[in-house]
Amino acid sequence: MPLEPRDPNFESRVRASFARQRFMATLGATIEHVVPGEVRIAFGFRDDLTQQHGFLHAGVSTAVADSACGYAALSLMEPGAGVLAVEFKVNMLAPAKGERFVAVGRVVRAGRTLTVCTAEVMAEREGATTTVVMMQGTMMAVRGRGDVSD
Amino acid sequence: MPLEPRDPNFESRVRASFARQRFMATLGATIEHVVPGEVRIAFGFRDDLTQQHGFLHAGVSTAVADSACGYAALSLMEPGAGVLAVEFKVNMLAPAKGERFVAVGRVVRAGRTLTVCTAEVMAEREGATTTVVMMQGTMMAVRGRGDVSD
Amino acid sequence: MPLEPRDPNFESRVRASFARQRFMATLGATIEHVVPGEVRIAFGFRDDLTQQHGFLHAGVSTAVADSACGYAALSLMEPGAGVLAVEFKVNMLAPAKGERFVAVGRVVRAGRTLTVCTAEVMAEREGATTTVVMMQGTMMAVRGRGDVSD
Amino acid sequence: MPLEPRDPNFESRVRASFARQRFMATLGATIEHVVPGEVRIAFGFRDDLTQQHGFLHAGVSTAVADSACGYAALSLMEPGAGVLAVEFKVNMLAPAKGERFVAVGRVVRAGRTLTVCTAEVMAEREGATTTVVMMQGTMMAVRGRGDVSD
Repeated sequence: MPLEPRDPNFESRVRASFARQRFMATLGATIEHVVPGEVRIAFGFRDDLTQQHGFLHAGVSTAVADSACGYAALSLMEPGAGVLAVEFKVNMLAPAKGERFVAVGRVVRAGRTLTVCTAEVMAEREGATTTVVMMQGTMMAVRGRGDVSD
Repeated sequence: MPLEPRDPNFESRVRASFARQRFMATLGATIEHVVPGEVRIAFGFRDDLTQQHGFLHAGVSTAVADSACGYAALSLMEPGAGVLAVEFKVNMLAPAKGERFVAVGRVVRAGRTLTVCTAEVMAEREGATTTVVMMQGTMMAVRGRGDVSD
Repeated sequence: MPLEPRDPNFESRVRASFARQRFMATLGATIEHVVPGEVRIAFGFRDDLTQQHGFLHAGVSTAVADSACGYAALSLMEPGAGVLAVEFKVNMLAPAKGERFVAVGRVVRAGRTLTVCTAEVMAEREGATTTVVMMQGTMMAVRGRGDVSD
Repeated sequence: MPLEPRDPNFESRVRASFARQRFMATLGATIEHVVPGEVRIAFGFRDDLTQQHGFLHAGVSTAVADSACGYAALSLMEPGAGVLAVEFKVNMLAPAKGERFVAVGRVVRAGRTLTVCTAEVMAEREGATTTVVMMQGTMMAVRGRGDVSD
């Protein structure tokens, strides 16, 4: 599916909005790659992001996958629209052990109001890469609301 | 449905495991209430937990709802079993604006291996309470794995 | 939450739309109860609705739960709007064994475009009732499209 | 990912179990293709499978996607294990209009007890193919229960 951005400045707009997501900074996550309909976000393992067994908390990978989906959706929206998550579902495929994690969000179908996305989160561990989380979700374009832009 | 704990020390076990979830401390979340099959976790708004429009990031409420579901499930497991999240799905009902947030996780059905839970996250704002996130998910009892207990 | 219908004829409108769902007739499902924001649909067990072990196929209860959610959402929409399912998620709580099944769909939050619903499907078997399926999903109001009304 | 069947007779076993799913016959669905970890099921449009606007009912495509996932999972299970659906989530990408529909279920990760699958349902209409439904779900291997085999 050829994905055409409706905003020629999509990349700077996505990066600027990501930079306003204070929670991504809290997690140490950085945006690595933005193309129309696809966004990649990476972050490193930290002890303060773990669950009780010492693995990465599922909420961390889910939060980053949610941002990757949201920005993949925003990359295709016209100037002025804002993005909000409607819903998402994740399956945990393996315990999230690794030194570094990468979430890739992709648009599957971009409608005028709703955009369906998938994301996967991969763990990099001792040179090997394993998919640990899969997401399928819906993002919404919000228009005409001053408090929700980009 | 009468929910009978199989571990008389369920409350201290849940609280001790929660205390090992470093990510909950990172979010400033505390466990407020533990009864068999139901766990309540609260946290306050902080600027470093926000998304681009200044609302709480959906990943924060989702992470806390996931922990509430996991510990609701663990509260019914026999000593020695550990809990892991298999999958969950969330719907965002309203933008997460508030001074304080409370997640309540509840067991809907506890099987030997799989436990189905729901959670809701409520925002407290200027004296009013609004449900902002609903979760429906599956938790798994893990046995005989040294790295996954409680 | 008080749920106010925006269409005084909501009940006849929901029943007329249900009557056009040919697939519900194929399943032998009938609409039992319509109040604003809540719809109940029932159907009997039939051998031609089973999966390989002789239980009701999960797709049957899911289809009826989807219709129950869709009509719970439609019961709150203004005249002229049509309803479509955006997404739903189901958990199977127990094998669907029974003589008769009842699906109840309820609106959790009705927005202008999106309505979040839950549904449960209960099996009636030898006088006892068991919840076999839980759904959490999103319905959409469609306006101004001639091929999608009610 | 190389997917190795643990049962050399996986194909005949999957086809025999599918033949016992009476509901698939009710829908006019036939199994077209079985390889380890992937199953394709097709069915034609029929007026008695529609929702109120004359499109295919979402419950029909969901039911067939569920069977495609279940049999993709069963194709990798050892002899004697039975398969049950734990949960699934679907997003409807487009109204299901077409003359013929094809559901492809694929295993993403096969664990000892739980198998994560995805499925997509494609509509064939006037020579064009459109994905109308995407599923992400969990299937379970059941062992030692006489009423749940294959």
